[in-house]
Amino acid sequence: MDIGIIGAGSLGLLYSYYLSKNHTVTLYTNQKQQADQINSNGLLMVKDGINTRVMINADSTRNYKEELLIVTVKQYDIASIIAEINNLTPRTILFLQNGMGHLPYLSALLKHHIILGIVEHGAIRLDDHTVQHTGVGKTKIAYYNRDNSQNSLIQQLQINQQSLFPIEMEDNWRKMLSEKLVVNATINPLTSVLKVRNGVLIENDHFMKLLKVLFNEVIQVLGLSNEALLWEHVYNICENTAQNQSSMYKDIQNGRQTEIDAILGYLIQQATNTQKPIPHITFLYHAIKGIEIGND
Amino acid sequence: MDIGIIGAGSLGLLYSYYLSKNHTVTLYTNQKQQADQINSNGLLMVKDGINTRVMINADSTRNYKEELLIVTVKQYDIASIIAEINNLTPRTILFLQNGMGHLPYLSALLKHHIILGIVEHGAIRLDDHTVQHTGVGKTKIAYYNRDNSQNSLIQQLQINQQSLFPIEMEDNWRKMLSEKLVVNATINPLTSVLKVRNGVLIENDHFMKLLKVLFNEVIQVLGLSNEALLWEHVYNICENTAQNQSSMYKDIQNGRQTEIDAILGYLIQQATNTQKPIPHITFLYHAIKGIEIGND
Repeated sequence: MDIGIIGAGSLGLLYSYYLSKNHTVTLYTNQKQQADQINSNGLLMVKDGINTRVMINADSTRNYKEELLIVTVKQYDIASIIAEINNLTPRTILFLQNGMGHLPYLSALLKHHIILGIVEHGAIRLDDHTVQHTGVGKTKIAYYNRDNSQNSLIQQLQINQQSLFPIEMEDNWRKMLSEKLVVNATINPLTSVLKVRNGVLIENDHFMKLLKVLFNEVIQVLGLSNEALLWEHVYNICENTAQNQSSMYKDIQNGRQTEIDAILGYLIQQATNTQKPIPHITFLYHAIKGIEIGND
Repeated sequence: MDIGIIGAGSLGLLYSYYLSKNHTVTLYTNQKQQADQINSNGLLMVKDGINTRVMINADSTRNYKEELLIVTVKQYDIASIIAEINNLTPRTILFLQNGMGHLPYLSALLKHHIILGIVEHGAIRLDDHTVQHTGVGKTKIAYYNRDNSQNSLIQQLQINQQSLFPIEMEDNWRKMLSEKLVVNATINPLTSVLKVRNGVLIENDHFMKLLKVLFNEVIQVLGLSNEALLWEHVYNICENTAQNQSSMYKDIQNGRQTEIDAILGYLIQQATNTQKPIPHITFLYHAIKGIEIGND
């Protein structure tokens, strides 16, 4: 089928590469220069030191024609995309944002079939047309509007999946996003402020105390009850990605804007409604915002 | 007069240099090697690029003979020194520690004339016998036991002071130490965790929010009421030492143990008694303790 992928960062490039094996992919870039580069050079995937090239169509217009669109832009760029999507004829749209900051926009888009997803792959954009697949994970997806649950496009996507690129269906989008948010709201800010790899958070007793106290605050705000399981989830991710730097820490190191507003900013908004005290979330939010502005 | 200075870190070297101008100083080192170096090379002071050498007596025994002792060891080394001082014949002893962690020991020493001091100089120990005077400040001192208030040795110390080394008498030791502790408990941990120079804490709006919220917690725990004046004090220090790295940040960078236990550790103990919530103090305490253990 024809798939349009909106956003050509690490995830946009990664999804373009894998989905182009069985589908016709158009990658919508923000800059004409990037589209030109991809159209002339192809898309290069680096994995375990091996380079593989595919040819795909790249396009810097916003003339989305495909029946299935996959939105991979960062949270802070989503507002302008939403406005465009709102004007499209009805179709199936898969959102792959971190955090839950995009949820308030979705109610305006219910003429479309909305699917929400989370990405557990590790990927780094090396340049405009090259992506490195640093960690094989899964894409988890869930239907946002229930009437949509026999979506044939999504079924095709699942049938045709690659071995290195599994796509799994989840029952409950809110649970799925919340669990991901717990991870992103704890490991990401802490590793970014302390400037450590993920594993250090559980190897260092003092840092683990910080992780636990932050974790408790986050699940309180999200109103999540399965505390023991979620803690195990966070702990396991620190353990399994011990040598990795979190995406936010990488953004900080590269002087890029982080997704802190979509993650802790969202939780601060939520907590304003519920009036729960959130000193650690607030502290880390301002620490990251301050680090983004720069130190010197 | 004869002055014994206990501890040959940056402060011990700094005080030995300036006081040796008008007094006979013996510097008590922990290591024989350091005493040997000072006895053969003299003590070198670097200020504004100019080196000045003085000869002083250094001694690695703990055979304190002087009528005035000045204790400059770090908080975490003070327990063993206190035990030795306890056995001495009565004399005048000036303590120059950061924080208030040494206070509980002092009640056992009341046969001595106890003076408490705080140091506002900037100094870096360059090697065993060289100290750099990086910032001219003051020594503020106050009598711990009131009956001692006409102490002739302290009066001599004040009369003979150097222009670059003023010594000022304060009325109230508790107020003096509390104010210093507010500075050390806010600027030091924050600059160490965020890895910024002092000035950045007030130049960066987000970091200033963190400074303010931490400040409020600290003065709550210390039960200090003159909030506006104290905030001005903290703010001014950030402004006046904008380009400096705090002593704790320097310790962290050099892989040395910090004085976090004497500073935030002391406040945590105090707060346990009063049951005030101190999330920011606790968070920063564990962050620094964790950083001390090491990241990798």
